[in-house]
Amino acid sequence: MSEKIPDCINFGLAVRRERSKQGYSQESFARKVGIHRTYLGGLERGERNPTLVTMVKIARELGVSLEDLFRFENANDE
Amino acid sequence: MSEKIPDCINFGLAVRRERSKQGYSQESFARKVGIHRTYLGGLERGERNPTLVTMVKIARELGVSLEDLFRFENANDE
Repeated sequence: MSEKIPDCINFGLAVRRERSKQGYSQESFARKVGIHRTYLGGLERGERNPTLVTMVKIARELGVSLEDLFRFENANDE
Repeated sequence: MSEKIPDCINFGLAVRRERSKQGYSQESFARKVGIHRTYLGGLERGERNPTLVTMVKIARELGVSLEDLFRFENANDE
């Protein structure tokens, strides 16, 4: 178990929420994006500090914009 | 001169626009964020692939949300 990175927690939650909403398992979505399932798991728990390129890939495969993912992120604070 | 990373170009433009609007030089803003001026220059040109933690730091020092920076990004496409 890695430590959570405070600035990465909400992004991970937004990814998890949108992936689940679209009915993807972690495994199938990770395959679609081209990242490892355990990396996606860590990212969704806020334990990974993804690069912009990885974040864009994830947003693209979800069919949302990064603006959308960060809007969801802000919604977590409410 | 490094190569541009397509998925990083609009984020760099959004950072440059907001930094300039707020009257910071690259040097003074880089110092504020705690990154090197040449790294900030590369990032603004879309030649760097920043991590989420770096992006959050930049947004925080600009006093905007990442959602805002990605909204500006989308505006570049119009």
